[in-house]
Amino acid sequence: MIQINENFTKLSESYLFTEIARRVKAYTSENPNADIIKMGIGDVTLPLPKACIEAMHKAVDEMAVKETFRGYGPEQGYEFLQEKIRDFDFATRGVTLSNDEIFISDGAKSDTGNITDILGSGNTIAVTDPVYPVYVDTNVMAGRQNIVYMPVTKENGFVPELPKEDVSVLYLCFPNNPTGTVLKKDELKVFVDYALKHKALILFDAAYEAFITEDNVPHSIYEIEGAKEVAIEFRSYSKTAGFTGTRCSYTVVPKECTGYDKNGKAFSLNHFWKRRQCTKFNGTPYIIQRAAEAIYTPEGSSQVMEIINYYLNNAKIIREGLTKKGFEVFGGVNSPYIWLKTPEKDSWKFFDYLLKEKNIVTTPGAGFGKSGEGYIRLTAFNTKEKTIEAMERI
Amino acid sequence: MIQINENFTKLSESYLFTEIARRVKAYTSENPNADIIKMGIGDVTLPLPKACIEAMHKAVDEMAVKETFRGYGPEQGYEFLQEKIRDFDFATRGVTLSNDEIFISDGAKSDTGNITDILGSGNTIAVTDPVYPVYVDTNVMAGRQNIVYMPVTKENGFVPELPKEDVSVLYLCFPNNPTGTVLKKDELKVFVDYALKHKALILFDAAYEAFITEDNVPHSIYEIEGAKEVAIEFRSYSKTAGFTGTRCSYTVVPKECTGYDKNGKAFSLNHFWKRRQCTKFNGTPYIIQRAAEAIYTPEGSSQVMEIINYYLNNAKIIREGLTKKGFEVFGGVNSPYIWLKTPEKDSWKFFDYLLKEKNIVTTPGAGFGKSGEGYIRLTAFNTKEKTIEAMERI
Repeated sequence: MIQINENFTKLSESYLFTEIARRVKAYTSENPNADIIKMGIGDVTLPLPKACIEAMHKAVDEMAVKETFRGYGPEQGYEFLQEKIRDFDFATRGVTLSNDEIFISDGAKSDTGNITDILGSGNTIAVTDPVYPVYVDTNVMAGRQNIVYMPVTKENGFVPELPKEDVSVLYLCFPNNPTGTVLKKDELKVFVDYALKHKALILFDAAYEAFITEDNVPHSIYEIEGAKEVAIEFRSYSKTAGFTGTRCSYTVVPKECTGYDKNGKAFSLNHFWKRRQCTKFNGTPYIIQRAAEAIYTPEGSSQVMEIINYYLNNAKIIREGLTKKGFEVFGGVNSPYIWLKTPEKDSWKFFDYLLKEKNIVTTPGAGFGKSGEGYIRLTAFNTKEKTIEAMERI
Repeated sequence: MIQINENFTKLSESYLFTEIARRVKAYTSENPNADIIKMGIGDVTLPLPKACIEAMHKAVDEMAVKETFRGYGPEQGYEFLQEKIRDFDFATRGVTLSNDEIFISDGAKSDTGNITDILGSGNTIAVTDPVYPVYVDTNVMAGRQNIVYMPVTKENGFVPELPKEDVSVLYLCFPNNPTGTVLKKDELKVFVDYALKHKALILFDAAYEAFITEDNVPHSIYEIEGAKEVAIEFRSYSKTAGFTGTRCSYTVVPKECTGYDKNGKAFSLNHFWKRRQCTKFNGTPYIIQRAAEAIYTPEGSSQVMEIINYYLNNAKIIREGLTKKGFEVFGGVNSPYIWLKTPEKDSWKFFDYLLKEKNIVTTPGAGFGKSGEGYIRLTAFNTKEKTIEAMERI
């Protein structure tokens, strides 16, 4: 008899976005003329940079002709893209990587999920609270239920405290989703030092790195000494260059990054991840990798900067607009997310208020975890005009 | 201390294609003027169908403009593609599916690997021998070492016998990789009946379905009565439409398809796979899904047929050429693969002979499993001219 993976039955169904959709639908069906402004979902709205469009047209044409047609590519991605990442995303920040430490893939969601494949079942996992639900759900699916929560709240300045328990895997997403806050270099160093001391592994999700504007905020965890031994870093073009529907990302697994078997024998995680990807993945589409490569051209990078600045300006409008109205807000400086402290503790209640009274859709913080209660998340991904209008409505 | 998944250390490293590459390199460095014909690797060579090229250019242009730009799509794929699959790949064969039973993804390798996520650790797995190594490796990674081999050889007419042990998961790939042979309807029915009787699950890999030319060979396992309750089917555009570097495939999980917990309680696997994909995958690129959709237009489907027929004609040239020389060959009628019985038992020896004496690269059958010893695999994916030349050389 075929046995299911019973861990799936232990997953809590995420009703967050379903519930948001239900409430919005209920409201709009009663108020069909309501002019709703969406600031809930973390999806981009600006089109792809011109450089990416041109690169894709060119790559599509290559696929049309026998002489330039590409079949199977390397599972880990093409060197033309790995080189750009190595030189532009890392060497410029003093981080030396080799191509075979960079694994191109189809999304940070895939990679942060699939990375659990190479981890043993006995690990204790630490995540922030609030948290991106994928970190928790993928571990529950794999049978790991030893999950420790590190609150990230106004009270601790949105800097998670080191877990009191001995944990072996720590998920850190900074700039943070959903709070939009960051860790400064010395704050991140505390975690790297912990990992070095405890032989733990940090899974560093840097999907929002491109939004960092302040100095002293590390773009890569490898800017911290010793991090290569203890950290895997996830990057994404989704929010950077508008690739949410185009799908390209990469994961860095330095060769020094080490895991251990039950006898304490050390293994390079780079080899494990390579084996995982070569067995269960067949590479990102050639056309899409060419689009990602174009981000690193002078035109591409200035077009991407324009997109980022557009969203950052929206974030500023939201931040300043809400502050002016007397709200307490966090994030939005190095991030497209603004984390608003709701006047009352109930974030769903404030969600309803904004929906019904101001026709603005947001995301209740409670949906991201216990410590998210009392907050809502607003995103800067709408148009400038709608963003201004939303602030005028409040 | 971070614990690795120790199952990875139990994986046998696959040296097959590395070893082939090493031998070819050694030979060509000594014989730099050798005109090598590659008939080893299963990668396509013809460019993408024009209809796909046009659809991608159009989709790329959509991504360039705010009004038509697409961000996150549904994790399970767009309905525009699901509908085409439902109507053209299944309804035409009398199989009724709904859109939400069809999951678009980036490759059959990903899906046949990732499907192990939803299976419990206690299952006993049956695979054919020879076998596509991914089925075995992904189960070993997940800690399942109860693997039963079903030989597929000349002696049993390349029809695997039902396992004597009680197995709960059976991988069947037909048309088969590497043997190129097929199961007729009544032969496949034996497996469906076994699965129904034992409440087992069949993972049916139909990646080479488009190459079927003979009647009475099922294109989909759902053509067999009762199969929806016990089978998941994997399909791919890789070999059909030349998508090996473009990456699109799909997996069918009917709602009736059932798994059980330890108490025998039944669960719909459709729900489990949906949860897996929504948590660990973010959809196939919009542009690529539009390319796949174009396969179902009148132009697209005739262009695909042209590609398939080109490769099938190569297969015929190989089959007839080798038969004429007195070799015993199998496959190549409903498949791009030809399975040649080597004159002596040692398939690596025959590989070396073809490489050194005829300058033809093939794949030794021993690389696919014990029962592959004594065979080599030739592929029909080279040009017609090179294929003819190869036969003339032999």
